[in-house]
Amino acid sequence: MPLKRIALVALLLLGLSATQAQVRHEINFPDLPGYRTLKCDLHMHTVFSDGYVWPTVRVDEAWREGLDVIAITDHIEYQPYKNDIPTKHGRANEIAAGRARERDLLSVLGAEITRATPPGHYNAIFLSDVNPLDTEDFYEVVRQAAEQDAFVFWNHPGWKGPELGRWGEYQETLFERGQLHGIEICNGESYYAEAHQEALKRNLTLIGNSDIHDPALDHARTPANHRTVTLVFAKEKTLAALREALFARRTAVWSQNRLFGRQEHLAAMFQACVEVQPPHHRSGDKLWLAIKNHCELDIELQAIGDTKPATINLPAHSTSLLRLDASVLGKREGLPYRALNFLVGPDEALPVTLEIPSP
Amino acid sequence: MPLKRIALVALLLLGLSATQAQVRHEINFPDLPGYRTLKCDLHMHTVFSDGYVWPTVRVDEAWREGLDVIAITDHIEYQPYKNDIPTKHGRANEIAAGRARERDLLSVLGAEITRATPPGHYNAIFLSDVNPLDTEDFYEVVRQAAEQDAFVFWNHPGWKGPELGRWGEYQETLFERGQLHGIEICNGESYYAEAHQEALKRNLTLIGNSDIHDPALDHARTPANHRTVTLVFAKEKTLAALREALFARRTAVWSQNRLFGRQEHLAAMFQACVEVQPPHHRSGDKLWLAIKNHCELDIELQAIGDTKPATINLPAHSTSLLRLDASVLGKREGLPYRALNFLVGPDEALPVTLEIPSP
Amino acid sequence: MPLKRIALVALLLLGLSATQAQVRHEINFPDLPGYRTLKCDLHMHTVFSDGYVWPTVRVDEAWREGLDVIAITDHIEYQPYKNDIPTKHGRANEIAAGRARERDLLSVLGAEITRATPPGHYNAIFLSDVNPLDTEDFYEVVRQAAEQDAFVFWNHPGWKGPELGRWGEYQETLFERGQLHGIEICNGESYYAEAHQEALKRNLTLIGNSDIHDPALDHARTPANHRTVTLVFAKEKTLAALREALFARRTAVWSQNRLFGRQEHLAAMFQACVEVQPPHHRSGDKLWLAIKNHCELDIELQAIGDTKPATINLPAHSTSLLRLDASVLGKREGLPYRALNFLVGPDEALPVTLEIPSP
Amino acid sequence: MPLKRIALVALLLLGLSATQAQVRHEINFPDLPGYRTLKCDLHMHTVFSDGYVWPTVRVDEAWREGLDVIAITDHIEYQPYKNDIPTKHGRANEIAAGRARERDLLSVLGAEITRATPPGHYNAIFLSDVNPLDTEDFYEVVRQAAEQDAFVFWNHPGWKGPELGRWGEYQETLFERGQLHGIEICNGESYYAEAHQEALKRNLTLIGNSDIHDPALDHARTPANHRTVTLVFAKEKTLAALREALFARRTAVWSQNRLFGRQEHLAAMFQACVEVQPPHHRSGDKLWLAIKNHCELDIELQAIGDTKPATINLPAHSTSLLRLDASVLGKREGLPYRALNFLVGPDEALPVTLEIPSP
Repeated sequence: MPLKRIALVALLLLGLSATQAQVRHEINFPDLPGYRTLKCDLHMHTVFSDGYVWPTVRVDEAWREGLDVIAITDHIEYQPYKNDIPTKHGRANEIAAGRARERDLLSVLGAEITRATPPGHYNAIFLSDVNPLDTEDFYEVVRQAAEQDAFVFWNHPGWKGPELGRWGEYQETLFERGQLHGIEICNGESYYAEAHQEALKRNLTLIGNSDIHDPALDHARTPANHRTVTLVFAKEKTLAALREALFARRTAVWSQNRLFGRQEHLAAMFQACVEVQPPHHRSGDKLWLAIKNHCELDIELQAIGDTKPATINLPAHSTSLLRLDASVLGKREGLPYRALNFLVGPDEALPVTLEIPSP
Repeated sequence: MPLKRIALVALLLLGLSATQAQVRHEINFPDLPGYRTLKCDLHMHTVFSDGYVWPTVRVDEAWREGLDVIAITDHIEYQPYKNDIPTKHGRANEIAAGRARERDLLSVLGAEITRATPPGHYNAIFLSDVNPLDTEDFYEVVRQAAEQDAFVFWNHPGWKGPELGRWGEYQETLFERGQLHGIEICNGESYYAEAHQEALKRNLTLIGNSDIHDPALDHARTPANHRTVTLVFAKEKTLAALREALFARRTAVWSQNRLFGRQEHLAAMFQACVEVQPPHHRSGDKLWLAIKNHCELDIELQAIGDTKPATINLPAHSTSLLRLDASVLGKREGLPYRALNFLVGPDEALPVTLEIPSP
Repeated sequence: MPLKRIALVALLLLGLSATQAQVRHEINFPDLPGYRTLKCDLHMHTVFSDGYVWPTVRVDEAWREGLDVIAITDHIEYQPYKNDIPTKHGRANEIAAGRARERDLLSVLGAEITRATPPGHYNAIFLSDVNPLDTEDFYEVVRQAAEQDAFVFWNHPGWKGPELGRWGEYQETLFERGQLHGIEICNGESYYAEAHQEALKRNLTLIGNSDIHDPALDHARTPANHRTVTLVFAKEKTLAALREALFARRTAVWSQNRLFGRQEHLAAMFQACVEVQPPHHRSGDKLWLAIKNHCELDIELQAIGDTKPATINLPAHSTSLLRLDASVLGKREGLPYRALNFLVGPDEALPVTLEIPSP
Repeated sequence: MPLKRIALVALLLLGLSATQAQVRHEINFPDLPGYRTLKCDLHMHTVFSDGYVWPTVRVDEAWREGLDVIAITDHIEYQPYKNDIPTKHGRANEIAAGRARERDLLSVLGAEITRATPPGHYNAIFLSDVNPLDTEDFYEVVRQAAEQDAFVFWNHPGWKGPELGRWGEYQETLFERGQLHGIEICNGESYYAEAHQEALKRNLTLIGNSDIHDPALDHARTPANHRTVTLVFAKEKTLAALREALFARRTAVWSQNRLFGRQEHLAAMFQACVEVQPPHHRSGDKLWLAIKNHCELDIELQAIGDTKPATINLPAHSTSLLRLDASVLGKREGLPYRALNFLVGPDEALPVTLEIPSP
C-alpha cells in the first residue's frame, strides 16, 4: 500500500474518531477487593411515559457513557402522550432488551410509582410484571412490588411538596413493613442532605440516578459534568449479583465531583484510586514524589492537624507532583488528610492516610 | 465541616483542574514484556541557541506531557542571540538538570551539530562535554562525539539541501566508521519515507522528535495532535538502560497517529494495546463482542483477504463494539488484519491477528 | 452584596454555562445584499416514523444549533413502531408547532414519500394535509403534493438502488410535469456529485439536510463537524418568503466545511464573509495585513496563475496574518484565487479576487 | 480540479485549523460610543528579567489571544539569569518591536520598579529610556519616570508584605506629587478589593494585567479561563491615544468572568454587549423573546425588587430565550436588574435596565 494512502487513511480516522457516536468511554472507578464496581443508572424515562426518546436511545447513551446497568422506569400513573402512544407498562424495557444484550448492558425491569407529595415518587426495580402495580391505593402498589421481590427506593425526596422530603408517616410505614430499601440521595444535579442523613440512620441503600427525560447530550465527560450514577459493588456482573449487592447496601453515589458512601466502601475506593509513588528525589530536607489519581474525581485533600501541605489537589486521571519535608519518611503512620469530596455523611469527609513508600 | 463549604470547595476544584499547569498526563503506551516503555524527546532547543524558552520550560512541558526523557540539543554552531546571550555549550542542560530531577525526568546532555547540507544536522547525545565538538572540521566533530561514546543520529534528513535527505558520502563514511547510530525519521509533523527505508536497510535506530523551538502550546492531546516522540524499550528507567536500548535499536516512533517501528516491537505493542473481549451475546449466526484500545492511537484495521468486517476502527482510550459472524469462533488461527497505522516500513502495515476468546 | 457572594455567583455561572442545554449558538453566515440568510434543515424524523425522539426534541435541537427553519418529514409509508404508535400523518409537526413558535423557529409541514429505488425518496414540504399523499400510486402521491402547491425535492439520490441516483424516467417525468423542484445534493455527511451536476443542468434548487433520526449529540460545532443545512436567501423570515426563495433557487448547501451553490450566491457570500484589512506595516518590499473570516468555514484559497502566496488558509471566526510583496498595492484588479471550499459545481471552485485596500 | 482532491484539501484544512498556532482570536468587547476598545496587557516578563520566554514570544501570544497593546515590563532591579544574560534595560522591548509592528500590536516601553514591601512594585510605561531608572533611591526612580512623562501604576498591591497592600506613606507621597496614576486591581487570577476601593477614592486609573512569566499555554479561552487584561477606551489605536485614555482613566478590567470599571464605562459596555430582541411570540399572558450576549462574559443578572424572572443568565457569545409576563410591555421604564459581574465597586454590581422593544 502506498504511503499516501496510509496518510489519508490516518487523516480520515481522525475525523471518524471525532464523530463516531458508537464509542464507549469507560467510567474509571476501580473494582474493590472482592467486588466488581458496576456503574448503574436506575432511573430514566422514555416516550412511554414523559421522556423524549425511544427506548433504544437509553441503551445507546448508557453504552457510550460507560454504564453497566440501566433501569428504564417509566411512570405508572403518568403518560402525557397517551393519546398518541397508548399505555403499555413495561413496553420500553421490552423494546430496549435486545439492544442491551448486544451491548452487554444489564437491563432491569422497573417502574416509577408516581403520587402527589406525600407520599411522593418511588422506583421499584427487578419487577417481573408492571401491570399489577397500576392500582389506586398507594400501599397496595408497594405491596405488589414487594410480592415480586422488587427493590424499592424513594426518589428525589427533597423535590417538592409540603414536607420537602422530610421522612414521614408513609416512609415510616413502608420501612416498618420492610418494603422500602433505599433512598435516592442524588437525582441529576440535586443532592438531598437530609435524606442522606435519614438513609444512614435507617441503614438504607444510598442511590443516585440521572432521572433523564431528554436525550443525553453527549458532552465530553468532566469531573464537574457527568451523569449521576450509583456505583454498586457486586460479586459479579449479573442481575442476581446486582440485586444481592443493592439489598446488602454496597453502593456509592457519584454526583458532581463528589462520591457519597459508607466509610468502608469509600475508604476502599480511595485506596484503589490514589497511588502514592516512592520519592524519586531528595535535596536537602526536601523530598519529591508523584501521586497518581486513577479515577474520575478531581480529589481535594485537606490536612488534619498541622500536616504539610495544608491542601493537596489530585486532578482526575493525572499525575501530581508533591514536595514534602524529608521528615515524613520517618512517620510510620503516614500523613493524615480528609478527602473533601469523599463524603461519608452530609457533613463528614472521609479521613485518609497517605503512606509514603520508601524510596 | 458544613456542606456548603464542601460544595464550594468542590466547585473551586473544578476551576483549578482546568487551569493548573503542573499536572502530568501520562502517555499511554504500555510496557512490553521485559521492557519499560520510555517516552523520549531527544531534540529540542532553548534560548541558548535559537529556541524561544528558558531551559526549565522544556522540563515543565515534558513533565506535563508525560515524557520520561529529554535531551536539550542546542546548536553548537548557531546562536542567533549571542550578542545578548553569550555562547555557553551545555549550559541549558545544566540549568535544566535540577528541575528535571525534581520531576523524575532523565535529562541527557546533547548538542546539535549544524552544518550546511550535505552533510546536514546531527544530534549527539550522552555527551560529557560539548566544548570539544565546537571545531571546524565536520568529521572531527563526530569523532569527538564518538570519543565520548555518544549516540549520534542524523536529523530531519529530508529537510532541505540539494540531496533532500538522500544517503550520501558523508553518511556512508560516518556509518562505516561506526559513528552514526540512528536516523530521525520523524521530526515534528514531517515524516521521511526514504530515510525510514535507509534506516531499515542499514539497521540503524529509528528516532522521532519534536525539534521544538517555540513554547509547547499545551493543547489537549489528541491522536492527531501530539508531540512526536521516540518510544524506547529499556530494561529500566536509567540513563544506562536508555543508552543500551538506543544502541540496541529497541525503539518506535509515534507521530501523527502512526507508530513506526520494527516488526517485533510493533507486534508486541499491538498485543499490549488491543484487548479483545470474549463475545458477550449471540443471536442467530451473529456474535457481539467488545474491543478495548488502551493506547493513544486511533487504530485502523484493514482486513486481509475476505475477513469480515473489511475495516475496524478502534478509537484511542475507548471500547468499540463489534458484530461478527458466529463462524469466527471456529477459526483457531484468528482473524487476519493489517494495522494501517502500525508501520514496519514506509509502505508496509503490520499484519496482526485478532484472536476471539471463547465466550 | 458582599464580594465573596459575587465571586461565588461568578463561579456558579461558569458551571451553568457549561451545562445549560437551552442556549443558542447562532450559525454565522451573514445576510446577502437584499436577502436574509435563513438556516434550514428540511429533512428530519421523529418517533412518528423511524426517528428516535419526540417531536419537540427536534425544535430544541434546532434552536440550540442556530437554525431558523425546520421541516419534520416523517415517512408516509414507513412507521416501524406503528404497533406502539399508531400512524397519524402530520402529527409530529402539530406537536412541535407551539414549541417552535416559542423559539421563533419557522416550522414547515412536510412528509417523506418513501418508495423503493427507483423512484426513491422525495420530500414534499409546505403541505396543508399529509393524508391525501398516503396512496399507492407514486405519480398520484406527487400530484397530490403539487395540488397543495408543495415544494418537492429528490432525497439522497446516490443512496442505493440499481441506478445509484442516476436521473431516470421517474425524475424526468416529474420534472416535465413541473412537480420536482429541488435535489438534496448533501444528506448528512454524504455528497452526491452526479446529482449536483444534474441539479445545475436542470436548473433545480440545491438542497442539503441532516436527515437526522437519532438525537442530535450537541457536540461543540466545528468547521468539520456540523449539521448539514440549506442556507436560503429570503426576503424576510416568513414562510411565504422562504417558499418564494426556494422556488427561486436562492440557496446554498453547507456540509462538512464546504459551501455548494450558484456562482452569484457564493460570490456574494464570500464577499460578506472575508474582510481584507488595509496593510498595517511595510518593511522593505514586504507588506503585512490581516484578513478576518467571519463565517463557519475554514476557508482555503489557492492561487490562480503565479499569485503569491500560493495558498492562503483562513480559519473560521479568526483573523489571519498575511505577508505580501509590496507590489500588490499597484494591482488594481486584486489578487486572483480559487476558494476551494466554495463549490459552484462538482469540480469547480469559486474564483475570487482579494482586493487590497490602500493603507 | 477533481472532487476527490477538493475533499482531501478540505480534510487537510481541518487538521490545519486545529494546530495552526498563528491564528488570532479577537477578544469580543465592543467599542463604546466615541471610543475604540483596546485590549491591553501592560505587565509581562521575558528572559531579560525573570520570565521564561524570548521577547518575541510575548508578541506572538498577544496577537493570537486578541490583544492590541502590550508592555514588556522586565524588572529593573532583579535579573536572576544575569550571569547568562547580562543586564540590558529595555532590550526585550527592542527585540519585540519589529515583530509587534508586523502584527499590528502597539508595544510600549515599560519597566517594573521592584522594591521590598513597602513600597512594593510599580510599573512605569511610555518610557523613552529605562537606564536612568536604575538607581538606588525609590523616590528618585519614580521621579525619573515622571520626567519621562511615564504612566506609573502600583502593581499587585495585596501581594505580600507587612501591609498587604494597604495604602501607606509611599503611595501617599507619590500620589501627592502626581507621580502615581493607576493601581493594578487585578493581577492574573488575583483581585484586590481594598486596592479597588482606594483607586476609586483617589480617582486613579483601574488596571488589570497578566504579569505573565511562563509561556502562555494557549488553552481555548473560556469566560472562566482567560488572560486578565485592561480594556482602554481610546479615541484611536495609537500610542498617543492610548496614553491620553490611560491618564483620563477610561479603562475597565476583565478578569475571571468579571468586568471592573467606572459606572459610565460599564453602563455603556453593558449596553453595547446585550441586545434585547422584540418579543417574537405571545400566548395568553406570556411573551417570548431572545437576548443576545455579544461579549466574552457569562453575564448574570439579578432582579431588583420583585422583577421577574429573579435571575437571568446570558452565556457568552450566545442567544438566550426568555419567557416574560406580557405585562412588561406596558412598562416604559424597563426591567431593573443588577449585572452581578459588572462591578463598579468592590461590593457594588452595576444597575441596568432591560428595555423590551415593541414586537
